[in-house]
Parts: sequence; structure tokens; C-alpha cells
Amino acid sequence: MSEKNSVGIVKSKIFKCKNSLKLDCGVMLNEYELAYETYGKLNTKCDNAVLVCHALSGNHHLAGRYSSSDKYPGWWDSLIGPNKPLDTNKFFVIGVNNLGGDHGSTGPKSINPKTKKSWGSKFPIVTIQDWTSSQNELISYLGISRLSGVLGGSLGGMQAIQWSIQYPEKIKNAIVIAAAPNLTAQNIAFNEVARQAIVTDTSFNKGDYYKLGVIPKTGLRIARMLGHITYLSDDVMGRKFGRKIKKINYQYNLNTEFEIESYLNYQGDKFANEFDANTYIRMTKALDYFDPTNGNKKKLSAVFKKIKSSFLIISFTSDWRFSPKRSKEIVKALLDNNISVSYAEIIAASGHDAFLMSDDRYHDILGSYFKRMLEAK
Amino acid sequence: MSEKNSVGIVKSKIFKCKNSLKLDCGVMLNEYELAYETYGKLNTKCDNAVLVCHALSGNHHLAGRYSSSDKYPGWWDSLIGPNKPLDTNKFFVIGVNNLGGDHGSTGPKSINPKTKKSWGSKFPIVTIQDWTSSQNELISYLGISRLSGVLGGSLGGMQAIQWSIQYPEKIKNAIVIAAAPNLTAQNIAFNEVARQAIVTDTSFNKGDYYKLGVIPKTGLRIARMLGHITYLSDDVMGRKFGRKIKKINYQYNLNTEFEIESYLNYQGDKFANEFDANTYIRMTKALDYFDPTNGNKKKLSAVFKKIKSSFLIISFTSDWRFSPKRSKEIVKALLDNNISVSYAEIIAASGHDAFLMSDDRYHDILGSYFKRMLEAK
Repeated sequence: MSEKNSVGIVKSKIFKCKNSLKLDCGVMLNEYELAYETYGKLNTKCDNAVLVCHALSGNHHLAGRYSSSDKYPGWWDSLIGPNKPLDTNKFFVIGVNNLGGDHGSTGPKSINPKTKKSWGSKFPIVTIQDWTSSQNELISYLGISRLSGVLGGSLGGMQAIQWSIQYPEKIKNAIVIAAAPNLTAQNIAFNEVARQAIVTDTSFNKGDYYKLGVIPKTGLRIARMLGHITYLSDDVMGRKFGRKIKKINYQYNLNTEFEIESYLNYQGDKFANEFDANTYIRMTKALDYFDPTNGNKKKLSAVFKKIKSSFLIISFTSDWRFSPKRSKEIVKALLDNNISVSYAEIIAASGHDAFLMSDDRYHDILGSYFKRMLEAK
Repeated sequence: MSEKNSVGIVKSKIFKCKNSLKLDCGVMLNEYELAYETYGKLNTKCDNAVLVCHALSGNHHLAGRYSSSDKYPGWWDSLIGPNKPLDTNKFFVIGVNNLGGDHGSTGPKSINPKTKKSWGSKFPIVTIQDWTSSQNELISYLGISRLSGVLGGSLGGMQAIQWSIQYPEKIKNAIVIAAAPNLTAQNIAFNEVARQAIVTDTSFNKGDYYKLGVIPKTGLRIARMLGHITYLSDDVMGRKFGRKIKKINYQYNLNTEFEIESYLNYQGDKFANEFDANTYIRMTKALDYFDPTNGNKKKLSAVFKKIKSSFLIISFTSDWRFSPKRSKEIVKALLDNNISVSYAEIIAASGHDAFLMSDDRYHDILGSYFKRMLEAK
């Protein structure tokens, strides 16, 4: 997609919410800020807004660039822009950095108004419900009483589900990609290893590392390397790297021998220099906690009873983090309630990360669904 | 299986090899020691010996106990003993701790005869070929010119494959369980994350931590937690732990919330106190390097050309570390050479760890194969 279909130069904005928010953990936030961006224009009926929720390491910068010299566009630039599947000529698209995030929203690095110091370890554990509650405040502030759609992949998809449960009157369509109704034990296990790598890094200092001027890089890079393996499929790693070695012969030492090792180490180093460890921990915790059935106390079908939105669910065959089987659990519970749902299982080799790729078959389905949303208005 | 079918009280022995061994990495070991155990009696024809090779964290203590107060028997006690599938009334069974190991064989903790200090970081990187070469010395010392069988699971299975390639005249049967002809990029990736967790632990000190009186426990426990996830299947983790939480309600803090988290942390702590980090690194490196095709320079079928042994290959349906698909690659290459091979794919939920369990269907197949070995003599 050429740059001419870009939303162009964009600016990050801050929404200061003065309404207090009681978090799931019990902590009361008297006020907080959310960093957000918008693309396209809200129409006069205010019925063309699509909220895009981000995943673990994402943020509110979905599309466009901050300046002409900006090296990379927003993370979902392939999807969002004029004449792109999520067409900003027609939709008013909103990206928001989640509470607890590291990209401008109130989070562990922010100044705690009570202490005038960074929250650090004291920043509360946040949940997906806390996020949708705070996103709802932003939506109201923007003058939107009902969203045309909430879209998200992975952890973002879980937010779209939560929106449709929590605010049935305020969301017309939920587009849930590469997500699951909750984490499996294996999912939680991977998150816990990542967290343990971070919290046992001596620089973590129980989360109060800002004041010491250090970063738990060692732990963060391990967390990211591990995460990266789960985002890719065995197959795509085999195709990309296989057993390719860096030198002509084995070196027989502790250095990296295989290209896959270098790749992972590079990804780990990059991430550790960019992402905040306290935020990383909170994002993984939010994933762990998400469970609309509340530990199977209610069936998913029963939880979905009051939903009024239509759904598009997309999964990818090689995604072993949130496999198609998990998406089908959502589809089943929606069908049980006679809720309109379209489901697409895309044959893709890239694993969980496929949701970020610009595969034509995948983007065409999204494009068609967004068109239907316009026609149904 | 009751204690009466046990091999009883056993004793670990040391084989001092005075023949030098040139390792794959180029280092010459002038002499070395191998810790080993034997069960049953070598018959007068010396044709009833079965060598059992261990996996990553295993050792030479396969069966029996060191004393009557010994809490646990050897790691494959369910399989090996009088009237057990590998019947020590009939077979002479040998367990050996691999070179570089941490259970009595020459390894990183051993004294380097040149410096009179622990090898530490200077202990060479060893390969599966180095292990089979050294095991061959032990076999000769025990008066065996041809093994009735070499048996191993996982990394142990790779040693059985290597034996049949390297010493075609010296092995009649290779029993290869839950193994693969080499590691995939994903397999190597998991190993590398584990290694990075260890080498970036400040206590690791590039491998020279013995003299400092510290252990890189932080890294080792992460490595083990991660390994553990890959040994189990998503399914069995779901059945055992699911989303069970430790307390009645979520605590919303950095402590472990879910039972799977506690389990992994426990396993990690236990291992970090018991296993040597330098050995762990070398075992994972040996796994990475194993590749009889030498980076696909030769087809596996071509590599197997000179093999004279018969094979039993066993895989487990839920093993995603070394999936049945990988076992079938071995079967295919054997069939290409008209080599006798029996293959069993066991429906099992336990993942890679299934090879250590005493499932009747699995042990019956092994028992039948061992019986056939006796009859074919």
C-alpha cells in the first residue's frame, strides 16, 4: 500500500479524565489520563466511530507518522487509512493507550498525585474491565454515544468482547481477531515465566527501579524472547530460519550459533530498551485475569445473553497461542444466543503474529465486514 | 509395580578412561571419568547388554535405590527391574552419566588436571558423538563387543540413533523414544532463551561461579520453568491446573494467583538448587548440534545407509517438543534403506514427558520388543 493511502502526519493527544474510576483491584483512581489518536472524521450522526484496542506491547499509535522523518508508521497502518480496509474516509478511528501503559496514558512511570513521585510498584494491577471502563469515558468525551465497532487482535480482541458484555447498548459490532475467551493454563504459564524473568532481575527492585536509574533489561529481554517464540509458529520459524548457522562451521562455544538465536537476542535487546517492565507485567496480568465466566461460575453462553452487537471473529490456523479452537468457543457461545456472528479461519503460516500482517485474504474479510457496517447503518 | 520387582540397592561406579578422546570441538581430553550403574548380569556370551542413555536432566541412576532410606528410586525404575519390561533377569542394563554431566562423570565441576581447579567455563562443549564415543569406551571396558540394544528417550533417543550410525557393528537394536532427527528452529529457540536466562544471571560469571561460591539460581529456575512448559501438553496442563486459583478470589498483586504458576515456580526452585548450570548449558547445546545430515548436506536416508541395527521408534500424540511427525522422518529414512523398524504412536495426553510415565500400552510395546530381542539372539 503506497504512502498516498496513509492518514499522513498524526498527533498524539491526551484525554484528562476527571471522573474517578474504581478499579477491579479496589484502588480508586481519582483522575487519570489516556493517550489517544484519531483518524478520519466523526460524522454528524456520530455513528461512524471505530475504537481499536491494542495488544500486549501495542499502543494508541495505529496509523500515520509523527513527522515526515518518522521511520515507521503506526502499528496497524496496513489496515487503517483512506481506502484501506478500515477506511478513514468513512470511519472515525480511535486508538487509545491502555491505562497502565507506557505510551502516554497514566501508568507506572507516571507521577502519583499523592506522593508526587512515580507510581512504580504502587501502580495498581489493571484489568480489561478497567480498560473498557476508561475507554468508555474517552468515547463519551469525544461525543460518541454508540460505537460502530470495537476492533482488536489478541488482548485487543478480548477488550472488544468485554465492550460487548459491559456496554451492550454502546457497541454495534465487535471484531475479535486471534483472541480467546480466556487464557489456558499453558498461556498463563508462559506469562508467568516472563514475569518471573523480570521480577527476579535484581534491577527490578520490586518495581521501584525508576528512582534508581536502572532498568530490568536482563529480565525484559528474556520475557520478550520467550513471547516472540509463542507469537510465531514452528512452521514459519522453520521456513525463515530452519537450522541456518551464522558462520560456516559450528563455533562450539557459548556464542549464538544459529540464526534463530541471533534473531531472538536482537528482538529481546530491542524490546528491553524500549518497553517498561512494570507495564509489561500489568499487561500480562490483565491477560491472565480476563475470564468473563469468572472461573466457570457462569457458562460463556450465559455471560453473552445481554450482548446486542454483531460479531466478526477471525482466527489463524497456525496460531497456537490462541488457536482457532478458542475462537470457536466464542462463536459457539454467540450462536447459543442467536447473536449475528461471522467467522473466518485464515490458513496462515505466521502463527499468532498473523493478525498484524497484511495478508489480502484476511484484510479483504475485514474490509467487507466494515463495508457491511456502513451499509447497515 | 511393587518394590519386590526392584533391582534393589544399587551402587554408582566410576569408569576411569585412560584413552584420550578428541572432542568434536577440537579439545583433546587425555583422560576422563564416567559414572555408571549396571543392573542384571552380563551373560557368558556377552550378548544381553542394553545401554540406556539419559536426557537433558537425567543421569546414570536408572533403577533401584542407593539405600533403604532413599526417598526415590532411579528415574526409569518403572521400566527396569526383574520381570519389568526391560527385565534385569534377562538383560544386563547399563546407565551412564554423560560427559559434561553433573552426576559423577567428568564435567564442568570436575578438577581440570592441568590447572588443579574446577573446569568451570573452560569445560569444552560436548556433542552427542562425543558421548557415544565415550560410552563405547565404557562398553569395551565392560567386555561387551556388541550391544543388544541402546535405548533412550528425547536426547537419549538421539544417542541411540548416533550409536547405530557411528558403530553399526556394535549395536543390534536402537530403541528411540520421543526423539527427532534434529532440533527445529523452535526447539533451538526455547533452548536459547533458557541459556540466555542462565548466562545473563549475574551469578553465572561466564561459567566460573564455583570459585565464587554462588549459583546462577535465578537463571536456572527460569530455564527450568520454561523447559517444563515444553515437556507438558497444553491439554494436560489444562486438565491438571486449568484456571484454578490459589485463593478464593484474585489478589491483584505480583504474587502467583494461579495454581499453574505455583507449580512452575516450585519446579524451578527445586531444579535450581539441584542442577549445575554449566551442565545444563552443555546439554542444551548438544541437543542443538545434533544433526546427522550435517545441515542437510546429506539426506537422512543417505546417512542411514550403513546402519545394521533394527529399530523401535515410539512417539506420543501430544508431544509438541518432538512430535510424531519428527519420529516419522526417522522411520521414513530407515524404510528407505530397508532397515527393520517398528513404529508406535501412543495416544497420550502428557506431552513430551509421556516417555517417562509408566503407561501400560507404552510399556507393553517396549516389553514385547525386548522379548523379541531375546528370541532373535
